[in-house]
Amino acid sequence: MTETFVIAQGGGPTAVINQTLAGAVLEARKRHPGARVLGARHGVRGIRDGDFVDLSTLSEQELRLLAATPSAALGSTRDKPDMAYCETILKGLRETGATAFIYIGGNDTAGTQQILADAAGSDIAFVHAPKTIDNDLVENDHTPGFISAAEFIAGAFVSVDLDFRALPGIYVGIVMGRHAGFLTAAAAAWQQDEDSGPHLLYVPERAFSPVRFVDDVRAAVSKHGRCIVAMSEGVTTEDGRSVVESIVPPDRLEREAHGNVRLSGGDLGMAVEQAIRDGLPGVRARVDTFGYLPRGNVSTISSTDAREAFEAGAFAVEAAARGGGSVALQVENGITIPRLVPLANVAGKTRHLPDDFLLPAGNQIASPCRAYLERLLPKRFELAKPFV
Amino acid sequence: MTETFVIAQGGGPTAVINQTLAGAVLEARKRHPGARVLGARHGVRGIRDGDFVDLSTLSEQELRLLAATPSAALGSTRDKPDMAYCETILKGLRETGATAFIYIGGNDTAGTQQILADAAGSDIAFVHAPKTIDNDLVENDHTPGFISAAEFIAGAFVSVDLDFRALPGIYVGIVMGRHAGFLTAAAAAWQQDEDSGPHLLYVPERAFSPVRFVDDVRAAVSKHGRCIVAMSEGVTTEDGRSVVESIVPPDRLEREAHGNVRLSGGDLGMAVEQAIRDGLPGVRARVDTFGYLPRGNVSTISSTDAREAFEAGAFAVEAAARGGGSVALQVENGITIPRLVPLANVAGKTRHLPDDFLLPAGNQIASPCRAYLERLLPKRFELAKPFV
Repeated sequence: MTETFVIAQGGGPTAVINQTLAGAVLEARKRHPGARVLGARHGVRGIRDGDFVDLSTLSEQELRLLAATPSAALGSTRDKPDMAYCETILKGLRETGATAFIYIGGNDTAGTQQILADAAGSDIAFVHAPKTIDNDLVENDHTPGFISAAEFIAGAFVSVDLDFRALPGIYVGIVMGRHAGFLTAAAAAWQQDEDSGPHLLYVPERAFSPVRFVDDVRAAVSKHGRCIVAMSEGVTTEDGRSVVESIVPPDRLEREAHGNVRLSGGDLGMAVEQAIRDGLPGVRARVDTFGYLPRGNVSTISSTDAREAFEAGAFAVEAAARGGGSVALQVENGITIPRLVPLANVAGKTRHLPDDFLLPAGNQIASPCRAYLERLLPKRFELAKPFV
Repeated sequence: MTETFVIAQGGGPTAVINQTLAGAVLEARKRHPGARVLGARHGVRGIRDGDFVDLSTLSEQELRLLAATPSAALGSTRDKPDMAYCETILKGLRETGATAFIYIGGNDTAGTQQILADAAGSDIAFVHAPKTIDNDLVENDHTPGFISAAEFIAGAFVSVDLDFRALPGIYVGIVMGRHAGFLTAAAAAWQQDEDSGPHLLYVPERAFSPVRFVDDVRAAVSKHGRCIVAMSEGVTTEDGRSVVESIVPPDRLEREAHGNVRLSGGDLGMAVEQAIRDGLPGVRARVDTFGYLPRGNVSTISSTDAREAFEAGAFAVEAAARGGGSVALQVENGITIPRLVPLANVAGKTRHLPDDFLLPAGNQIASPCRAYLERLLPKRFELAKPFV
């Protein structure tokens, strides 16, 4: 029987999601000479609409170039298929003669694969290959896409800390992350010493208090002569509501298919700046929302991340041969190894920062988090200590 | 006579301003064995307050590490000295026994040097060494700091263009630049082809019309299926007022010592997003304000920029021997060479994008600008063309 692999990409793009695509295509062709490999455009939407790219004929050189290109070359989607949509996807897969469907994405993508696998029976292998800058997939030590985005953020905070030594003031950088604070924690990965920023970190895992925030900033300014803050866009008050949801007028609140309120945008930054202005009048305060800059940035592609993403894609083909499931990056003896775990273990679940990754006050990382970040993001440069 | 060099850094930091500092220190010590080299903390403020660092004793290795460290290691200032302030600076310089004062900065810094030179007579050589990410110094082909910041921006726009192919919509990136559009133009430096973003650029050199902006975006969406926009924070309407000045409530408008309205902050981004939402309802629209991320970013330090900044610092010592003036990076036969020009040529003047750098519509760069950017920012990578 001719093997037919269908591959798609879902959710937010990353710097290395095409590595996973290329890894899967090359491995499929190596293991199954003559196999057809089809790429669906814009995730499951392409399967539903019969919109495919033939990846069977690309040369290895073309695939290596594709792998090195950030963002999702096949296009992506945020569609969250219901049962009726899933029926059309299954129909689309059967029309291609698919023997395996590899879907590269986060926990929502794993959820789609689980629904499809449950509905399809065993003639098609459903594989979820991991991808997310948020690093929030359970079963994974870390996820493809995270290290590259984290390097952007770590480098940015080293840089603004130096900038705000030169021209002192308060700086807040707002970082993507709805439920998990890994990316925000990465702001501290390349911290130079005790006096270096970020001096404060606010993540979704701890209740955010605007009053305490201003007190924290005031204390940091008086200790360091400046204050550098990393804040997750998903910070949430004691009542469980995201700060963004509280401050954006209802007529401007956007929700996507998964029901999530859109967190990106300038509202949180403006509110934070106003809170600082009110609490510390006359102190120079600047807030940047990093927005889309970290997630698929061509300037901060980590070679480790690229290699691991490629290997996750190659392993997805083996996972298909073993009947499907979710590919998870696990670490054994310091080496990252892709493993096969049940889709149900990953689907729709969110991995949070472990409790011991934060100091008790909740606004700075603790040594287990430092060790984790040092393992994933070894510092790539040495810097001098400024004279100010 | 023992030579005594005083060196200071002014204005916004860059990724390579410490290269210029290190270049000056090493050259001063080479040309004048036994010379004293003092660094003033926070620009002229350090001279006024007698706050100096002795740079004479640093090893070459320490200086090389300092050079590779972004931002202003001596600290910076936005003080714009009046005559009385200048008297205190001259007094401070004489107390150190200064024979030369090298001040690294932009056109305001050159202006300070001119005032000091006029007031001091000939016992001290006043040298301005160029530095600005804005690339807005006359007499210079380009300025130290620009290429590194421009590489950040060029890479960011390559990346978001790919991101918004994968998940289509409208993206606006707002870039530093009060009067000159060079950094914003750099968004197009690594454009892949005709279909690639940025599809529209708005710079301070052309009158900005909010109505035409929305029409432009609508046309780009219908042509490309998405729209990527690069916009200077300093965009200005026909009446000569910056858009920021028009939209920020007067009680929140900040002005610095030079009388400039503060342009950074989220207001412009919020207004732009609202304008798109009103004009193209239902279309996904995202706006990021790049803020402080491009200007001293450790992840995008250009080796060309670093080398030229170092050479500008070394040449500043020769300029002192020749009686002072402004160091300007000029290009002859394709080679960048530092030259000595009168302070008055540079002081307080702003270089703008040449007229022929923009297409007649004013919202995209023209081929002379492309050639300029290709010369300064050769593309460092090759990318695949996505399937969407």
